[in-house]
Amino acid sequence: MPPGSRVFAVMALSARVFSLLRGRLGRMGAPGAAGPAFRAFRSSGARHDAIIISGTEMAKQIQKEIQESVESWISLGNRRPHLSIILVGDNPASHTYVRKKIRAASAVDHVDERTVCNGIAPEKDVDGFHIINIGRLCLDQHSLIPATASAVWEIIKRTGIETFGKNVVVAGRSKNVGMPIAMLLHTDGEHERPGGDATVTIAHRYTPKEQLKIHTQLADIIIVAAGIPKLITSDMIKEGAAVIDVGINYVHDPVTEKIKLVGDVDFEAVKKKAGFITPVPGGVGPMTVAMLLKNTLLAAKKVIY
Amino acid sequence: MPPGSRVFAVMALSARVFSLLRGRLGRMGAPGAAGPAFRAFRSSGARHDAIIISGTEMAKQIQKEIQESVESWISLGNRRPHLSIILVGDNPASHTYVRKKIRAASAVDHVDERTVCNGIAPEKDVDGFHIINIGRLCLDQHSLIPATASAVWEIIKRTGIETFGKNVVVAGRSKNVGMPIAMLLHTDGEHERPGGDATVTIAHRYTPKEQLKIHTQLADIIIVAAGIPKLITSDMIKEGAAVIDVGINYVHDPVTEKIKLVGDVDFEAVKKKAGFITPVPGGVGPMTVAMLLKNTLLAAKKVIY
Repeated sequence: MPPGSRVFAVMALSARVFSLLRGRLGRMGAPGAAGPAFRAFRSSGARHDAIIISGTEMAKQIQKEIQESVESWISLGNRRPHLSIILVGDNPASHTYVRKKIRAASAVDHVDERTVCNGIAPEKDVDGFHIINIGRLCLDQHSLIPATASAVWEIIKRTGIETFGKNVVVAGRSKNVGMPIAMLLHTDGEHERPGGDATVTIAHRYTPKEQLKIHTQLADIIIVAAGIPKLITSDMIKEGAAVIDVGINYVHDPVTEKIKLVGDVDFEAVKKKAGFITPVPGGVGPMTVAMLLKNTLLAAKKVIY
Repeated sequence: MPPGSRVFAVMALSARVFSLLRGRLGRMGAPGAAGPAFRAFRSSGARHDAIIISGTEMAKQIQKEIQESVESWISLGNRRPHLSIILVGDNPASHTYVRKKIRAASAVDHVDERTVCNGIAPEKDVDGFHIINIGRLCLDQHSLIPATASAVWEIIKRTGIETFGKNVVVAGRSKNVGMPIAMLLHTDGEHERPGGDATVTIAHRYTPKEQLKIHTQLADIIIVAAGIPKLITSDMIKEGAAVIDVGINYVHDPVTEKIKLVGDVDFEAVKKKAGFITPVPGGVGPMTVAMLLKNTLLAAKKVIY
């Protein structure tokens, strides 16, 4: 799948376009093999280093939970949950090219992203991009929540990071990541779909860098989804803050001459000052996959609609 | 109408339940009588006093614009736009009592607020409370926007207050006021429904007071919709900030022994330090009524759907 292409995942009871993950829910994470809820560890060396949250371990635990839930669901005579994926665009061209193509396509082509999102039945829309799911999310009602936002929420909650009355900065305002994260964290903990009761600042490309720094220095939790390597440096954070890195950037390593995956945080420096930090890779990424599967299960069980 | 009761306004081409404002669109603001776009004036005395934004004057101007638009719409052979109001609950009891009643009703009674909101056709939902309108608002698509949020936006834009890259604090996270205001102000100015491109902090009842102060002191624009008299005092604001007061509080005046209407801002003190300020009454209130009428016109002309 080329980077920049748009993938729509759909909960379905029969294969629709093609099902990459068919049967995956039934096979992954053999019972008994999964680890604890998360394997947090202080990295060796300086005792002030942050707890590095392993999204990989946490995702394994969630997949184990889903696995158990799937098995008991099936044992009651129900059909196995099934995930279908609709891929719009299949050109293996470069990131930039594909992005340009999509931008152009959104103006003139026959496949409009929003039309596709709304064309999926909301109760099968495991991406949480349907207008009804977005509306319900923003009204604090039960809904299928975009998986990345859900992943960030689960990481915070399962790690035991306090949000009530805390200062949170969300850097990035995309509709499938930054916006829903800000929505989950600022809203009322007593509502139908409980929120985090945090004071949330939404920053973005037009937030002046020096203002971003003022805000992040006040923050107890920083969530970065900007797509800018080393956007968050250690001078920008408060001692002990939780730093959740949603960035996915492929950068050229001048030493190894290879392409490597990095987030939006200057990890090595920030981990010495933060209280909690998620790595890239192995942080939000695997948790996003786990939450997509969880949405598939929720949709299959018709828990929300 | 008792405070705390819930009113649903509906654009309709024929009277449905009862139409309080029937014909109003055709009568208000005789052409030529309305004032300029807004009559901002520096209050007498200290030269550093804020420009007091007259929502009353600005609303007159908008109603004049609507009036002209209605007349030209009708002259093309169309029916006169028509506003119907559905009032749920009519008990003239105290504020507290009605609130308790509504809280109880939301759990057990037959009239659920959200059900009523979604029962109205989205294209006639001039309150902008239908889930489709909320969803579209949050996706930066054209929609019928809740009138109070729209009023705050118009006040800022017509006064010429810059939002791009500025720090905004929205105190209050209600779904019909605080949330949509935060949505309008932080989003992308290039989207279908342009946003303000501001860095927005959403504060609420669980924001510690000393943290609120830190955030408001950084803010270029403060929008208060908390329902707490004198929540915003002059020590909390930056010199020259714009202060938009959405509060509606009825308080007992110990001097006159009368009940008077005040906002959430310590007006007399804050106006000496702010750059712009809206009074209560005569600020956001009349503008909200104007924007409800504007939504009615938009709905009648089917501009959005």
